[in-house]
Amino acid sequence: MEITKLEPKERRGLVVVLTGHGKGKTTSAMGMVLRASGHGMRVCIIQFMKGDLYSGEWDGVKLLGDRVELHVTGKGFCGIQGNPYPYDEHRRNAQDAIALALEKLRSDQFDLMVLDEINNALQLKLVDLQQVMAILDARPQGLHLVLTGRDAHPDVIERADTASRVDEIKHAYRRDIEPQPGIDY
Amino acid sequence: MEITKLEPKERRGLVVVLTGHGKGKTTSAMGMVLRASGHGMRVCIIQFMKGDLYSGEWDGVKLLGDRVELHVTGKGFCGIQGNPYPYDEHRRNAQDAIALALEKLRSDQFDLMVLDEINNALQLKLVDLQQVMAILDARPQGLHLVLTGRDAHPDVIERADTASRVDEIKHAYRRDIEPQPGIDY
Repeated sequence: MEITKLEPKERRGLVVVLTGHGKGKTTSAMGMVLRASGHGMRVCIIQFMKGDLYSGEWDGVKLLGDRVELHVTGKGFCGIQGNPYPYDEHRRNAQDAIALALEKLRSDQFDLMVLDEINNALQLKLVDLQQVMAILDARPQGLHLVLTGRDAHPDVIERADTASRVDEIKHAYRRDIEPQPGIDY
Repeated sequence: MEITKLEPKERRGLVVVLTGHGKGKTTSAMGMVLRASGHGMRVCIIQFMKGDLYSGEWDGVKLLGDRVELHVTGKGFCGIQGNPYPYDEHRRNAQDAIALALEKLRSDQFDLMVLDEINNALQLKLVDLQQVMAILDARPQGLHLVLTGRDAHPDVIERADTASRVDEIKHAYRRDIEPQPGIDY
């Protein structure tokens, strides 16, 4: 069988938003990282909220080689029961993450940037709408930018080329099944 | 900061269904492949429908090493305009894919299996409901099984531990933006 390899007449970076309350937003962003790596693209991932809980993707992306950078800037989910860090510390971390994202965008060394859970960070006021808009404005035309997290701001969705809402049909934790490696983290 | 590494009291394989018409189902499955690889898990991916169009994940998974197997058994989307293969040929391929899935399940050599677009294959009658149920029945208790594709059958969702529906909020192709490498393929 003949395999067609598409090549768009015009290559352009897309803004992709993954939102909703179901499982599959960060996961989908990681799938794009895998796919982009297959194309030899250079990837920068900045995780805004995660950081206190190990996730398999941290070691997974190492397997993809040094074209993928992963920055874990968060200290876990702000406001979630059991998270010991005060709001100010979460905000300071998220602010550092914004500065890092702008620096990485401006370096023009990447083909794909993932801002993981930035939608949550915005909703929790750890970052400001105008900061997210500044990132969208600073994006080089050829760079894919993926923004994940529940409750995406309408102005962010407005700027997206492609946006999906992932809704929960069912989830194992509702039947008291513990998070499982490989799937949940 | 201290990083917690979760370990469930009981490790168990989960059945995960990703359905809906939005972007992010196969992509999310690929994210689980990346995550599972980070945990050192062995992965088997069988793509039921794709095959005639190159996708970056084919080379992406090679970077993950020989713990990941990818089988592309399809000849493209049956019934989609421009696909030149007759129904019988699509059905024969999908039947081979089912046999392969059962063989791989029974080998007990994998921690994660992805049956990509199997929901579509079922909906298009390239495979039968009882065949998908037989796969669910044959699954070793410790194996994660991920089934993707639009229009998942209710009986399949019934068997899932976790199921998400990915809906389209917007998609670049509706504004005549061509598919872009790294994001769309």
